[in-house]
Amino acid sequence: MLSIVGTGNVAWSLAKAFHSKGVEIDYILARDTSAGKELADYIGTVFLPLEEADKVTSKVVLLCISDDALSNVSGEYEWPDETCIAHTSGPTSIKTLSIHDKCGVFYPLQSMNKNENPNFQKVPILLEASSPACLILLSDLAKIISDDVRTMDSKARLALHVAAVWANNFVNHLNAEAIELAEKHKVPFDLLKPLIQKTAEIALHGNSARSQTGPAIRGDESTMNKHLDFLDSRQSEIYRLLSSSIQKSNETEL
Amino acid sequence: MLSIVGTGNVAWSLAKAFHSKGVEIDYILARDTSAGKELADYIGTVFLPLEEADKVTSKVVLLCISDDALSNVSGEYEWPDETCIAHTSGPTSIKTLSIHDKCGVFYPLQSMNKNENPNFQKVPILLEASSPACLILLSDLAKIISDDVRTMDSKARLALHVAAVWANNFVNHLNAEAIELAEKHKVPFDLLKPLIQKTAEIALHGNSARSQTGPAIRGDESTMNKHLDFLDSRQSEIYRLLSSSIQKSNETEL
Repeated sequence: MLSIVGTGNVAWSLAKAFHSKGVEIDYILARDTSAGKELADYIGTVFLPLEEADKVTSKVVLLCISDDALSNVSGEYEWPDETCIAHTSGPTSIKTLSIHDKCGVFYPLQSMNKNENPNFQKVPILLEASSPACLILLSDLAKIISDDVRTMDSKARLALHVAAVWANNFVNHLNAEAIELAEKHKVPFDLLKPLIQKTAEIALHGNSARSQTGPAIRGDESTMNKHLDFLDSRQSEIYRLLSSSIQKSNETEL
Repeated sequence: MLSIVGTGNVAWSLAKAFHSKGVEIDYILARDTSAGKELADYIGTVFLPLEEADKVTSKVVLLCISDDALSNVSGEYEWPDETCIAHTSGPTSIKTLSIHDKCGVFYPLQSMNKNENPNFQKVPILLEASSPACLILLSDLAKIISDDVRTMDSKARLALHVAAVWANNFVNHLNAEAIELAEKHKVPFDLLKPLIQKTAEIALHGNSARSQTGPAIRGDESTMNKHLDFLDSRQSEIYRLLSSSIQKSNETEL
């Protein structure tokens, strides 16, 4: 039914998720033989070199590889015509795979780590396909691991991916800085936990814009100056830019 | 036992929290008579003009006012000598109130909104006082509304407040941007919810630094360029700076 190309966080997470649901994965394919065999062994299947892509018997191949590698891996090797080749990249258009008659996108909207056992049940999986038959194949697979399967075109998916970078990559970086600041100044990090929890709850209710608090939105310059004294030059630059952005957003709303 | 000065988010939230726990609030004091009476009426107590501060009979007065107003309000009016005067500001030193023999700090580490009914039970309340007697008074009050009451000196509290600005004010602003981006491009915002939830969980476990994902940490320039095409100039500036900061933090760790 399914083969997976890649050995990174997405390949490991999807392979483990399908394996745990009893889906047999025919092959793990990868450029790196050793890494490919490691994943194949982990889920009890066979490693196949990319040079032997024509031997794939699966109805679907998921390309869990970097955006830059996508067109090479899909174009340089000989894939069976009857296989639906899908990538798993949020920001990449389905057109990248248009060399294949049967192609698609299988994008799980979540931050993944190969060492975790992710629970995909509530993770949205966004699908796109070159044909209804291919879409049904991808949809059947997605529904095995997720309760939230939708179709979305490449343009909307790119917009969503940008928003996800803000809500995940950037927020995560700021949380990391907050944790580091607390540790550097020997303040127990766990004091921040109720604040982190509440900030997330406000976002989950879609209320972040109207719930903005703090010295920037109050225009409290003396507090902002006290804060800047605590920060190094990289942090100060972020502090100034985000404070200014908070103030500009507020002006727009008034 | 207790009087409260102010009519903003902190004054309302603390007044409601104490009121709901059955603590009698003797007076609400404020510069703005109308706003002061509104809060006093809400919790069924009496408004007292700041000019009559000498009539306060409470053991503790909580100054829930802006940092800039603190020294004026504590210094310009005549407070009874036996009253412990405490401010509720994270970044402000206890020294701001050193004109009073009995002074202190009563800082609830949470983002507050006057229209909410906050649950302070798990909110850390950080105390500092000029005397053991004043500390006991503040501690007795704090324990009525919170299970997490600690002492912390002004320097550590300022450091914590900086960290809180990152984890709350800045994260909240980025979440607001993500929600707005999704809405602008007509992508359902609820698709981001599992991501927001997971990002918070990672932070609550203190794992944000080692869980960073996304195009910046991968050095995926082509995706970053696709994203920048979606953003206006204010957003692009934030995108570039945070992406660069993510990359620098990663280099430091290697």
